[in-house]
Amino acid sequence: MMKLYWARGTCALAAHIALEEAGAAYETERVDFATAGQRSPEYLKINPKGRVPALVTDRGVLSENPAILGYIAETFQDAKLASIADSFAFAQMQAFNLFLCATVHPAFAHRFRPERYAESDEAKADVKAKAPAALADHFRLIEDRFSDGRTWVNGDAYSVSDPYLYVFTRWLFRDGMGDPHRFPHSLAHMTRVDCRPAVQRVLAAEDDVAIAP
Amino acid sequence: MMKLYWARGTCALAAHIALEEAGAAYETERVDFATAGQRSPEYLKINPKGRVPALVTDRGVLSENPAILGYIAETFQDAKLASIADSFAFAQMQAFNLFLCATVHPAFAHRFRPERYAESDEAKADVKAKAPAALADHFRLIEDRFSDGRTWVNGDAYSVSDPYLYVFTRWLFRDGMGDPHRFPHSLAHMTRVDCRPAVQRVLAAEDDVAIAP
Repeated sequence: MMKLYWARGTCALAAHIALEEAGAAYETERVDFATAGQRSPEYLKINPKGRVPALVTDRGVLSENPAILGYIAETFQDAKLASIADSFAFAQMQAFNLFLCATVHPAFAHRFRPERYAESDEAKADVKAKAPAALADHFRLIEDRFSDGRTWVNGDAYSVSDPYLYVFTRWLFRDGMGDPHRFPHSLAHMTRVDCRPAVQRVLAAEDDVAIAP
Repeated sequence: MMKLYWARGTCALAAHIALEEAGAAYETERVDFATAGQRSPEYLKINPKGRVPALVTDRGVLSENPAILGYIAETFQDAKLASIADSFAFAQMQAFNLFLCATVHPAFAHRFRPERYAESDEAKADVKAKAPAALADHFRLIEDRFSDGRTWVNGDAYSVSDPYLYVFTRWLFRDGMGDPHRFPHSLAHMTRVDCRPAVQRVLAAEDDVAIAP
């Protein structure tokens, strides 16, 4: 049985939702960031990078959300969480997930964890203050994607990109980085994801809640 | 025919090498960063993110290196640039490529482009000064991966992860962020990639050279 290591309020939520949407048999183990559980010797044996999510499979451990999400979609094909048979469509989905992983997520990290990037208090404050403008640029690109009226990130079909975007839209709105009405498509998308039964089950399991702006 | 948009000294080198190793029929177009070609209206139509690489296919445009590299490996399967038939091995390869894309590459961006992350000169200098320690942490994880004596990133078989790592090892050594002998496996790997005929052809096409530390 697969086992997902997750922590509250992190991007591991996307992998957790994907497993639930897939109808997978899985168990979970919470990593407590408040006690630096991600740096414990036990956890570093699972993921030497000290990050979540990590997905333990019978073949070994996977890390990095887009790799985990792609693997879940491929493993549970009946759930139709990606265009598995169409390698170009799959690569386009991965390109979006990579934009979230390599551009949007680091931009949030500058907001939430400036100590990773600067030493002095003044520099940390500067890094933190600059992040919302970068995030606004990134979310404008996401808004453009939805301007054709699509329901989900990759078109008419829900995919693993949707819970992944949901993670970051929640962060944007929960942390008050501006008026949510600047990003109406993202807001509407977040609400659509909120309403999915699998998502509600996962939020309950993580002792978390939907965010109504 | 596929068309790769690239720029000198960027991570587009990985996609360029992958196309050459695959024996693909492709053409290339250089984007000139010195004149901000990546922000030109023409280029933003191809990649609204204003970054390279971008791969134009007959189905549309792909961006983000791990998505492009995975797509090249899937499209030209005879070249055996990834474990296509084994979805777990493929996901593990992608996890490594994602570590490069979302962790290693942003760490270099703090070194080379601190103006993306901070406003004041002092804060930019702080961000830039902190990057080498983060990069050393990341390269120590890469060294650990090679400690089992493997030849290539994913084991005995060359894959698209190899030219991708090569990009960043070149950056590390070219930009003098410390003694290369701290990272002997990465250095040896860079030399092995240097020696591949496809790599030499691509370096010549990009008017670039191998880096002998």
